[in-house]
Amino acid sequence: MNQVRELDTTLVEALRTLLGERLSTSRGVREHHGKDESYYPYAPPDAVVFPHSTEEVRDIVNICRLHRTPIIPFGVGTSLEGHVLAIHGGVCIDLSQMNQILAVREADLDASVQAGVTRKQLNEHIRHSGLMFPIDPGADATLGGMAATRASGTNAVRYGTMRENVIALTVVLADGRVIKTARRSRKSSAGYDLTRLFVGSEGTLGVITEVTVRLYAIPEAMSAAVCSFKDIAGAVETVIQTLQSGIPIARCEALCATTMHAINAYSRTNYTEQPTLFLEFHGTQAGVEEQARLVQEIAHANGGMAFQWATRAEERNKLWQARHDAYFACLQLRAGTRCVSTDVCVPISRLIECIVQTAGDIERASMPIPLFGHVGDGNFHCVILVRPDNEADMAEAKAFNERVVNRALDMEGTCTGEHGVGFGKMKWLPKEHGAALDLMRAIKRAFDPGDLMNPGKVVSREA
Amino acid sequence: MNQVRELDTTLVEALRTLLGERLSTSRGVREHHGKDESYYPYAPPDAVVFPHSTEEVRDIVNICRLHRTPIIPFGVGTSLEGHVLAIHGGVCIDLSQMNQILAVREADLDASVQAGVTRKQLNEHIRHSGLMFPIDPGADATLGGMAATRASGTNAVRYGTMRENVIALTVVLADGRVIKTARRSRKSSAGYDLTRLFVGSEGTLGVITEVTVRLYAIPEAMSAAVCSFKDIAGAVETVIQTLQSGIPIARCEALCATTMHAINAYSRTNYTEQPTLFLEFHGTQAGVEEQARLVQEIAHANGGMAFQWATRAEERNKLWQARHDAYFACLQLRAGTRCVSTDVCVPISRLIECIVQTAGDIERASMPIPLFGHVGDGNFHCVILVRPDNEADMAEAKAFNERVVNRALDMEGTCTGEHGVGFGKMKWLPKEHGAALDLMRAIKRAFDPGDLMNPGKVVSREA
Repeated sequence: MNQVRELDTTLVEALRTLLGERLSTSRGVREHHGKDESYYPYAPPDAVVFPHSTEEVRDIVNICRLHRTPIIPFGVGTSLEGHVLAIHGGVCIDLSQMNQILAVREADLDASVQAGVTRKQLNEHIRHSGLMFPIDPGADATLGGMAATRASGTNAVRYGTMRENVIALTVVLADGRVIKTARRSRKSSAGYDLTRLFVGSEGTLGVITEVTVRLYAIPEAMSAAVCSFKDIAGAVETVIQTLQSGIPIARCEALCATTMHAINAYSRTNYTEQPTLFLEFHGTQAGVEEQARLVQEIAHANGGMAFQWATRAEERNKLWQARHDAYFACLQLRAGTRCVSTDVCVPISRLIECIVQTAGDIERASMPIPLFGHVGDGNFHCVILVRPDNEADMAEAKAFNERVVNRALDMEGTCTGEHGVGFGKMKWLPKEHGAALDLMRAIKRAFDPGDLMNPGKVVSREA
Repeated sequence: MNQVRELDTTLVEALRTLLGERLSTSRGVREHHGKDESYYPYAPPDAVVFPHSTEEVRDIVNICRLHRTPIIPFGVGTSLEGHVLAIHGGVCIDLSQMNQILAVREADLDASVQAGVTRKQLNEHIRHSGLMFPIDPGADATLGGMAATRASGTNAVRYGTMRENVIALTVVLADGRVIKTARRSRKSSAGYDLTRLFVGSEGTLGVITEVTVRLYAIPEAMSAAVCSFKDIAGAVETVIQTLQSGIPIARCEALCATTMHAINAYSRTNYTEQPTLFLEFHGTQAGVEEQARLVQEIAHANGGMAFQWATRAEERNKLWQARHDAYFACLQLRAGTRCVSTDVCVPISRLIECIVQTAGDIERASMPIPLFGHVGDGNFHCVILVRPDNEADMAEAKAFNERVVNRALDMEGTCTGEHGVGFGKMKWLPKEHGAALDLMRAIKRAFDPGDLMNPGKVVSREA
């Protein structure tokens, strides 16, 4: 995949004329843009460009199309399935310099940003407005990248994923046209839902250059809690009963004992190293207290210990930072490892069964495999710690992943709850979607007949 | 549009062989299926079929395709923009006999139904489960029709629209293939969002035969209130401030004085005939009381009178039935009239301006035009009462509608918040979507190259 390509000098000249110093063909820059957080081998693009505007992206796309050159959009490179790897060469469009916040409309509870704005940048910008943008994948990803991957995070159980929180997108199409996918009203029945079609399209249907997202009033009260359980099933059962009771919990994350051990070592915390729930309640002061009391009762009935509270903002931030760092913490459990991460998501009724069976696989594995996830959504991750140059490790990891994915698909679940397809998950789509996959291919052909938009990803011809 | 077509006897024979008595070419049945709740003239199909299963729908589609005959899906005929009118003739697929509830999964908070199940039927079925399906367009529409129209209703401010509440669809495509648009997990990043593409496609991309929807725990406490205001702006301002405060209000509907008058006459109620909010709070007992107290304070500051409460289920049902009947109540204000309904939706920050300017139009109109709507979503309706055979009435109604739509589009809004496009709103899509409309056409061509799926609606070649 990582073959050396002849540089198309007229292409580079045209891009240089357009962008000057904001074009790079240096090895270092290309290599940085030829990898993500996954274990896949480098696949650097032929050139990297750094546009500042939708118009520049349009011009770049037009130049690339004339030269029949693939186009790979790039945010900050935190994807986990090889989304940004230039497996067919081409030009990487690094959108990180498109980092302007275009409008924050407090009355409408929305904001429009250039695609390179990160979630933390947006939240920092609106810090004094009383509003927040709650979608939080572990990494400080760009909003363009989060939209492209249909990302979510710990708040999805209450606030939804990028699917529910993108209001409109500006997109540069393969033919150079620039479209807005929707108006700014909260709902509309005016035609096909192009917004949702581009959310999750991973750069394969066009380049997202601007994103309008929903914002939320920061709740009057927020309170987080940590609760240990003697087994993971009790933790998950607590979450299921909480949801069925209609308690509007904001976050409910389960972490296995191994993950808690990794977090303690990495984040210098001293949590009990047992299966654990991290919980958060949002609402009025009285509402939060009431929710917490109800969930505590449910947890107790399922073998949960007393809640440890984190109510002050610093304490809560420390707790959630530890949760977000769980992935990196786990990587430290075994020296020199990379991670193969599973990302299945199943209907809640099957979640205990799915996790318990997977815990059996983990016990039989030769490497440490921490397990944690967004159990309120039915989504969990196994972080398989592999030495990427060790064939036995890689074979075992692939077989493990395969078992977990097949298990989830057999339970009416999905191979990826939030990481996306990239090229790493393409092989599962026939089993997951059946004939519907042909329809996805038809959309790809209609939008990108030349197969230039992030080719070889999601549903492209080459698997 | 309503031309008489030669019946294709081999087509009818093939359908009769498949369906026996569940095929009708009688004038009465065809005329019943050639209209909806709109003021548009009848356009009856050539034949009406009543399948019982996805497989029968597939066979019908295959027969129609062989005979190059248009296919129009039909639920209960409550659409408002001519969605179901057979403007190019063809076979109407009446899905009302596909009314089986296939599964209610209490643990997963979801249900799967055949497309002909109505929202009230589903709620009646799950009455004892402690769950509810909250999406409530005024009519008792089918879930297939609601999905196809991307319907919403009074609960959308809290629970979302069909966009947020459809988990998966079974769809018969134009080429006879049957697909499932998604797995049953709550979230997924596995490829393009086909579910959202079919939600709102109005039968133009395929025939929806089964729908899996989200259910919600019935809140511990529900309390509704009625509050009069001296002007509509105060009512709308109350809603805006409520949303900005993050109060999770379940319903907030504004109704003008004329609408209140119509409701009193139709539903034998005695509400104050002034601009009014109908509100509802869902939560725990304490939570509902707290929400209600906060909103009462906001309303008072905006010129609202004291809340009249409806807490018992019968009182609440009576109140919301009156709200749902507002459309029919308004039709009684002027004998022999039909209704041209506007359906714009704008960002909340522009809503007062949009409504106040529209109220000016209403004052200058020659006919009564009640105004009411889902102000929490930015969506409101003007019910223009016309005598359909009176040219002056129709010209005035069209000009009124045009002014309101242009006003909404100029405010970054949409021509239709929830009624859909049908053929009545097609002329607005170029202004609303610009170049994005071409992308919708590309999808239509890719999914339905023969233009047989509800042709002439949404984005079809003929406007």
